Amino acid sequence: MHHAALPRPSAEAVAAVVTALTRMLGNRAVTSDSIREQHSHGEGLPTIGMPDIVVFPETNEEVAAILALCNSHRVPVVPFGAGSSLEGQLAALAGGVSIDMNRFDAVLEVNPDSMDCRVQAGVTREAVNAHLRDTGLFFPVDPGANASIGGMAATRASGTNAVRYGTMRENILGLTIVTPDGRIVRTGSRARKSSAGLDLTHLYVGSEGTLGVITEIQLKLYGVPESIVAATCSFPGLDGAVASVVASLQAGLKMSRIELLDEVQVRICNAYSSLGLPETPHLFLEFAGSKSGTDEDVEFMKAIVADHGGGDFQFAERLEDRNRLWKARHNCYYACMAFAPGKKNMGTDACVPISALPQVLLETKADAAASGLITPIVGHVGDGNFHLGIMFDENNPEEVDKAEGMAFRVARRAIAAGGTCSGEHGIGVHKIVHLEAEHGYGVELMKQIKATLDPNGIMNPGKVYPA
Amino acid sequence: MHHAALPRPSAEAVAAVVTALTRMLGNRAVTSDSIREQHSHGEGLPTIGMPDIVVFPETNEEVAAILALCNSHRVPVVPFGAGSSLEGQLAALAGGVSIDMNRFDAVLEVNPDSMDCRVQAGVTREAVNAHLRDTGLFFPVDPGANASIGGMAATRASGTNAVRYGTMRENILGLTIVTPDGRIVRTGSRARKSSAGLDLTHLYVGSEGTLGVITEIQLKLYGVPESIVAATCSFPGLDGAVASVVASLQAGLKMSRIELLDEVQVRICNAYSSLGLPETPHLFLEFAGSKSGTDEDVEFMKAIVADHGGGDFQFAERLEDRNRLWKARHNCYYACMAFAPGKKNMGTDACVPISALPQVLLETKADAAASGLITPIVGHVGDGNFHLGIMFDENNPEEVDKAEGMAFRVARRAIAAGGTCSGEHGIGVHKIVHLEAEHGYGVELMKQIKATLDPNGIMNPGKVYPA
Repeated sequence: MHHAALPRPSAEAVAAVVTALTRMLGNRAVTSDSIREQHSHGEGLPTIGMPDIVVFPETNEEVAAILALCNSHRVPVVPFGAGSSLEGQLAALAGGVSIDMNRFDAVLEVNPDSMDCRVQAGVTREAVNAHLRDTGLFFPVDPGANASIGGMAATRASGTNAVRYGTMRENILGLTIVTPDGRIVRTGSRARKSSAGLDLTHLYVGSEGTLGVITEIQLKLYGVPESIVAATCSFPGLDGAVASVVASLQAGLKMSRIELLDEVQVRICNAYSSLGLPETPHLFLEFAGSKSGTDEDVEFMKAIVADHGGGDFQFAERLEDRNRLWKARHNCYYACMAFAPGKKNMGTDACVPISALPQVLLETKADAAASGLITPIVGHVGDGNFHLGIMFDENNPEEVDKAEGMAFRVARRAIAAGGTCSGEHGIGVHKIVHLEAEHGYGVELMKQIKATLDPNGIMNPGKVYPA
Repeated sequence: MHHAALPRPSAEAVAAVVTALTRMLGNRAVTSDSIREQHSHGEGLPTIGMPDIVVFPETNEEVAAILALCNSHRVPVVPFGAGSSLEGQLAALAGGVSIDMNRFDAVLEVNPDSMDCRVQAGVTREAVNAHLRDTGLFFPVDPGANASIGGMAATRASGTNAVRYGTMRENILGLTIVTPDGRIVRTGSRARKSSAGLDLTHLYVGSEGTLGVITEIQLKLYGVPESIVAATCSFPGLDGAVASVVASLQAGLKMSRIELLDEVQVRICNAYSSLGLPETPHLFLEFAGSKSGTDEDVEFMKAIVADHGGGDFQFAERLEDRNRLWKARHNCYYACMAFAPGKKNMGTDACVPISALPQVLLETKADAAASGLITPIVGHVGDGNFHLGIMFDENNPEEVDKAEGMAFRVARRAIAAGGTCSGEHGIGVHKIVHLEAEHGYGVELMKQIKATLDPNGIMNPGKVYPA
């Protein structure tokens, strides 16, 4: 990976900020190497930028004071949630301050009658759902990792449930943000819809920490369905699996999860999670609704799958069986790492119109096969989103080149098919090279907005926007 | 209504633009009084600003040329769709150019497999659905009026189906916009989700023509449900009706429409549409899904309604019966005008968290009763959105004062309850006074974005943003 050199703040400015933050926050301002290193990266990425200091604020006012200080000294700020981002979003490319939001760990309010809640940004998705356990409600967005809600908002994350419930974009009613100059602003409202002014909420959702810090999030909640049935089914080839997905979507089947694993990914998951599945392409499905509704949907889907050459349904109805299945799915990333010890996993995040999915998947599969690398495919195919994982040795230049080339082609293939280089991981550092290919002059508009809302460029510099 | 005086362009600038547009567009540039008057207002509002010229472009490039011209001369531009907006969005407060988008009337592509389509901005929602008739798909957002898709996008419109399918916000995948300096930009993609950069699409959705002109819209489509059942049921009072709505939402009933009409509105609709309903508060419902699914939902809803003192279900299953019912609902506005000849109808557009709806509705009802005016209530209560219509004589200062005071209090009551002054009509001219009450410092961020993307302030001046 090659990154443009970023201007760094002066040593005097950094020293002044470190001194002021230490005075302001005491032992919640940390400069130890281990903490700085831990805050320099997300999942599975090399350290490409260390912050000078890590701070652990506890209130909106503290975040505002930190940002106002950094803004006055032109010192960069990188917001940090659970550290599970995948595209280099957390690297402090020009040093500066990592704001760790983990002490923003309160569920501020739960409104069961309106089916919404307000949480602080550091609350994880599992913590939200643990908190909601007795209400009969849940928050559906599930990127696999136990990410923070603030990080998920900043990345416009989604995951396995998006085909039914939407992504963070569809499930956030409002935010509290802190602007780079230290203003605390509430966007949106608790109303389910609004036509009152520019949609600031959706401007900040997916802004990857480049416009300010998200400190609180108002979330939509949903009733836990009466009946939930998970199932796996297998196919002789990818094409039948994908065609079944397309047919089920067009039939309006209300599945809550439609996940594809190719035969490579199934082999890897068998090894890691002892699934014992035949090593062919599989769909992992979840049906949710009333008991009669899920019965009806299961029968409908069985017929669709049979029509496309698939079968071998295995059902998981009990909570522990469903959890075991989805845990295996969520562990795909770690299963890959364990399967190829010492290799790195270069992820891709193509998302295409569902009609383009078969061709894009099959072209990608052929490209991957030609590489000779280990290249599992797993995907939220109900959204048209899939991840080709590319296992490579970072010390082998040939493998690095192959991996980078293949990842590049996946992104460009998605864009050419009317889709996006990133369905859910964000741009961060690694996808910057694709932003203009995808958005053309729209990138100029994004940069104008960035320059207006963060005139000193302190917020997560070197991310999202091409130079 | 009082409006701040806006700076007008110089007579020379206007003359230069009129001359150039006439040369560019021939008889698609019109300066007749009748056409200018027609383009000076939306529904039911007085003329508060006449454009100097009305143009009828046919291509993105023509729109770009018009905007570049106006921008260079600092002459205002007001985009015009079907003329059905309600908040004064179409008034040319400082004169200038009305861009009538009705010649953008093509459905550019329909992708049945991906369930999306691309339409030009002047296509109406009825025209979209007529075009889709043979595909088994439909576009659900239905504000009642046969609005243009471009206008619906610009207003972030919704309507009766939003409780099931969401608003324009949730149903637009991407846009083509023309910036004030004449750049043609495509935002979003055909992918169902994306994390690639700032969400320009949702910044322009709901921007009410103040950031540029929307010329094309990529829409999500849905399969026509197998079974659709409409029904009415009655209640002795508003409270039971609203409590039934809250209970049905919490139970996760998948109704596609949940509309409330109070006894005043039922009386007015009986008179206009010969509904023959008892003159008490009613819910108008629509159930959609599989046959067994709607059967189950109907039974569930009957039990909920009975629990809250309601009943008297009347069903409409045949298409013509359903159409008759929803036509009566859509005609509420015209029914009010006919019921009180010579009076104006001041609409309100409160939208609140569903748990706050009973109190806000009942307080509003009491406020309205005290006024002595005719004040029907109709609402998309599944979204927490309701419209108090206030029939007043614009030549009677006391009625005008009463109406304005009541409308003001409805908006502020909604904001105080955690909601919004506008669920679906937009800010336009009439709700500007509420924007800061609702969004606080967020309004400053909106104004900064506006100033960046429209530095000369030519796009729909005097709307949305307080001075």
